[in-house]
Amino acid sequence: MAGSLADPLEDGDLLAAIDLGSNSFHMVVARYTLGQLRIVDRLRETVRLGEGLDGEGGLQREARQRALGCLSRFGQRIRDIPPQRVRALATNAVRQLAAPQAFLVPAEDALGHAIEVISGREEARLVYLGVAHAQPPKPGHRRMVIDIGGGSTECIIGAGFDTIERESLQVGCISTTRRFFGNGKLSRRRWRDALAEVSAEFQQFAAAYRELGWQEALGASGTNKAIGQICASMKLTKGAVTAEALPQVRERLLAADRIDTIVLPGLSAERRPVIAGGLLVLEAAFQTLGLQRMAVSKAALREGVLYDMLGRGGEDDPRETAIAAVTLRYGIDAAQAARVEQTAIRLFDQVARAWQLGADDLLMLGWAARLHELGLTIAHSQYHVHGGYVLEHSDIPGFSRQEQQFLAALVRTHRRKVPRSAFDALPERLLAPACRVSVLLRLAVLLNRAQESQPIPRLDAIAAGERLTLRMDRRWLDARPLLSTDLAGEPADIAALGIELRVEAAD
Amino acid sequence: MAGSLADPLEDGDLLAAIDLGSNSFHMVVARYTLGQLRIVDRLRETVRLGEGLDGEGGLQREARQRALGCLSRFGQRIRDIPPQRVRALATNAVRQLAAPQAFLVPAEDALGHAIEVISGREEARLVYLGVAHAQPPKPGHRRMVIDIGGGSTECIIGAGFDTIERESLQVGCISTTRRFFGNGKLSRRRWRDALAEVSAEFQQFAAAYRELGWQEALGASGTNKAIGQICASMKLTKGAVTAEALPQVRERLLAADRIDTIVLPGLSAERRPVIAGGLLVLEAAFQTLGLQRMAVSKAALREGVLYDMLGRGGEDDPRETAIAAVTLRYGIDAAQAARVEQTAIRLFDQVARAWQLGADDLLMLGWAARLHELGLTIAHSQYHVHGGYVLEHSDIPGFSRQEQQFLAALVRTHRRKVPRSAFDALPERLLAPACRVSVLLRLAVLLNRAQESQPIPRLDAIAAGERLTLRMDRRWLDARPLLSTDLAGEPADIAALGIELRVEAAD
Repeated sequence: MAGSLADPLEDGDLLAAIDLGSNSFHMVVARYTLGQLRIVDRLRETVRLGEGLDGEGGLQREARQRALGCLSRFGQRIRDIPPQRVRALATNAVRQLAAPQAFLVPAEDALGHAIEVISGREEARLVYLGVAHAQPPKPGHRRMVIDIGGGSTECIIGAGFDTIERESLQVGCISTTRRFFGNGKLSRRRWRDALAEVSAEFQQFAAAYRELGWQEALGASGTNKAIGQICASMKLTKGAVTAEALPQVRERLLAADRIDTIVLPGLSAERRPVIAGGLLVLEAAFQTLGLQRMAVSKAALREGVLYDMLGRGGEDDPRETAIAAVTLRYGIDAAQAARVEQTAIRLFDQVARAWQLGADDLLMLGWAARLHELGLTIAHSQYHVHGGYVLEHSDIPGFSRQEQQFLAALVRTHRRKVPRSAFDALPERLLAPACRVSVLLRLAVLLNRAQESQPIPRLDAIAAGERLTLRMDRRWLDARPLLSTDLAGEPADIAALGIELRVEAAD
Repeated sequence: MAGSLADPLEDGDLLAAIDLGSNSFHMVVARYTLGQLRIVDRLRETVRLGEGLDGEGGLQREARQRALGCLSRFGQRIRDIPPQRVRALATNAVRQLAAPQAFLVPAEDALGHAIEVISGREEARLVYLGVAHAQPPKPGHRRMVIDIGGGSTECIIGAGFDTIERESLQVGCISTTRRFFGNGKLSRRRWRDALAEVSAEFQQFAAAYRELGWQEALGASGTNKAIGQICASMKLTKGAVTAEALPQVRERLLAADRIDTIVLPGLSAERRPVIAGGLLVLEAAFQTLGLQRMAVSKAALREGVLYDMLGRGGEDDPRETAIAAVTLRYGIDAAQAARVEQTAIRLFDQVARAWQLGADDLLMLGWAARLHELGLTIAHSQYHVHGGYVLEHSDIPGFSRQEQQFLAALVRTHRRKVPRSAFDALPERLLAPACRVSVLLRLAVLLNRAQESQPIPRLDAIAAGERLTLRMDRRWLDARPLLSTDLAGEPADIAALGIELRVEAAD
C-alpha cells in the first residue's frame, strides 16, 4: 500500500496527491517545509470518466483512453517522488465499475504508482480535512461542507479538523444531468420533478443535520466554484452562493430550453454540459438543509489527502484512532489482542526481510491482531466470518477500500480453513503479502490460544520462499499437546495460502 | 410462534415443555398454582435421533419413525393444553439436518404443536435457568453448570437466574462415542488421543471460565446422572462426581475392550452404548476446567423452558431484556425507533383481526421497529442488509432460531426492494404473518422518514385479503411530496410480499 509515511518526513520532501474524480482528475504536489505543506504544483484535466460509464459497470473506450493519457502525464511529473510519498485515490466513477481491476491495473502502470479506491464516506472525511485546513481555525465552530462531484455528493458537518457527520449521496453533476436531462432538453416542469427526487436523497439526513446545526457552510469542487462564479458575474453576490441568488441563477439557466444553449455569465464552455445537474443538486441541498449562504472553498479532496498523509504512519494516523474506536465499540478483549499482536510482531520481525514485507504490512498485521476477536460480539460460532463481514462493510475512517478489504480478509482467515476466495477482492500486487501476513496472524492466534501470560520461551521463524519453518523449545511444546494438535492441522487449513508450514522442536 | 403467554396465566393452568434431544425426547407438564409451577407429569423416551444422523444432514428412516411415534404419544398427553401454553424445542440433532423442515413439518403434525429450533447458546441459557430454579437461592453465589447431551455439551457460569458465560460445544455422548469408538472397540491409547481432542474444545474458553471462577458445579441431563449413579454404586461418592472418582470409573470402563462388554455398577443397558463418549467429555471438562466436584441436578432444559414461559409475554420476558441490550450495544437512535414503533402499532391494531395477526406478531413488529436502524452502526449504505446479518447471526438470549430469523427478515426487508428469498428460512406457517408484518413495518418507517415529532393526523389502514388500503389526510399528504414519491414506489418494492398496497387521500 502506498501513501503511508513509515519514514519520517524531512524538510524539502515532496508529496503528491492525485484524485481520479468522475469529472476531472486533479494532482497537487506539495513541499514539506518547516513542518508545513506548501503547494508547488497543481494539474487538472477534464477527463469525464463518469461520462464513460455505460450504466452496467462497463467503461467506454474513449473515456478509458482519456484517463490513461492523463495519468501518464501526471506520472511524468512525479516520476522522482518515492512511492510512499504519493497517494492516488479513485472515487465514485471507479466504484461503479463492475471490474475495477481491469481499469486500475493499466491506470497504475500509466501513473507509475498504486491507486486506491475509497468509499464515499471516506471521501467525505478527506474533503472536510482539505477544506478545514484552508480555513482559519475557529475553536468550537461547526462547519457544513458540501462537495458536489461528478457522480456523488458529500455532505459533512465537522469542527476543527474532525468530522461529526459524513454522508455520501449517489447524485453528482454528471449523473444528475444524465438522469433528468439525458435528452438535452430543459423545462421548468422537469426541473420541479427532478428537484423532488434529488431532495429525497438529502431528506434522509437533513433533519439530523439541521438539529446539529453549523455556523458556516462551505462548498468545494468544480460545481460549487462554477456556481459561485456565476453568482459573482451576475452581481448577485461577491462569490458566495445564497438562498436568494440560487433561484435567479436557475431561472437564467431555464431560459434556455436545451443544455447546449445555456448562457450563464461566468460559466466556462467545459462546465456547461454538466451545470444543470450540478445546480439541481445544490438547490436540493439548499432547500432541504435550509441553507442561507455558502462560501466557496478553494481546497478539496486532494488537499485533504495531502494532510492525511502527514498523519499516516505516525502517532496521528487517523487509522489508529479508527481502530481504537472499533475495538471499544465491539468490546474486544484488549489483553488477548495484545498477546496476539506481540507474538505476531515477533514473527513478523524475523521473516519481514525474506518475505519482502514492509511497514504497511506490519500496520495491517497489528490492526488485524487487535481486531481478530471482533466477531465474538455477534456470536462465538463462526466468529471469524462475522468479524470479516463487519470489517468489510463498516465505514472505518482513514482506510481505503483495499486496505479495509486487506484487514477484513486477515480477520476472516485467522482461524479454521482458509477459503480459496478469501483474497479475491485484493489487487494482484497485494496477494503475496496478504497470504504471508495471514499465516503470521494465524500462528500468533494459535500460539496464544491458551491465553497464557508467560511469553513463549523460544520462537524462531525462518522464511525461505513459500516455506515457513517454526522452531520451538521441545519441552515447552511437549507440555502443550493441544497446541501440537492445532499446529498439526495448520498445513491442511492454509493450503489455499500457498505457504508450506513446518514445525520443529529444538532442544 | 407458540409458547408465549400473551394471556396472563391463571391458577390451575397447565403448561408443557418438550425437549427433542439427540438422545432422548422429554416432556414435562406443570400446573400453575399460587404463582408457582408444580410438575404434574414427566415423559421420556430414548429416541436416539442423533444416532440416525448420516453425517451429511440426512436422517435415517428408523430414527425418524421413532421420533414421530414418540411425538404423537406426547401429543396425546397435551391435546387439551392451548398452543400458547406449550413450547417444544429441538436442539443439536435437528440443527444438524440439512433440511430441518422435512422433519419438522411431520413432527409438528404428530405433536399437534409448533416446534422451534434453538441455538446451542440459547440451550445453555435455558439449561441454566432450569438448574438454577432447582437449587436454593444463594445471592452472589456463582454456579458452573455442565449439560452433556447427545450431540452437544453446554457449559455455563451464572449467578441467581442469570447466566454470565454460556458456551455450547459440538461434542456430546452420541457424537463422541461415534467419532472415537465408532468400531465398538475401546483402548487406553485411543482414550488418551480422544481426550486430547475433546479437551481442545474446552480449552477455547477454559482459561476465561477459571479466571471468573464459581462456588459450585452442577451437572445436568442423562450422562451426568448416569455417571453420578455409577460413582454412588461404586461407593466412591454419595452421587456426586469428583476428580478422584472419575479416573476410577474410567479405568473400570476401559477394563472392557469393547463397548458392548462394558460393565459398570449402576449403568442401565440403555445408557451403555453411549457412556464411553459421555465419560470422555466429562473427563475433558474436569481436566480443562480444573473441577474437583460436581453435584448432579435433576433439572435440565425442559424445566428451564417452563420457567422461561412464565416470563414470556410479560414484563420479565427475557427477550425484552435481550433487545434492550442489543439496542444499547449498537447505539440505536431511541427517538426514531419509538416513532416507528408507535406508527407500526397504530397500523397493526387496525389490521390485526382481518389479517389474523396475534400477540406474537405484535411483539415481533415492535422489536423489529426498535432494531430496524441497527445496521447504521456498520455503514449507512445497505444498512438494512447489515442489520439483517447481525440479527440473523447474533446470539440473542431468549429467542428461538425461527423467532430470530423472523426478526432478522423484518429488519432485512424494512426498506428497498424485498428479495423473493427474504423469508426462505421461515417455516411455512409463519410466511403469511411475516409478509404482513413486514409491510406494516415498511410503512411505519416510510411515514416517519422525515423524523417529524407531530403525530400523523389521519392514518386508516384497511386490510382485506392480500390488499391493504392506507387512507390519509389529503392536505397532510400533499404537503409531503417526498412521502408521496416513496409511497408510489412501494408496490414495486413489495411485489415479493404478495400484498397489494393502495394509498388514498381523504378530505
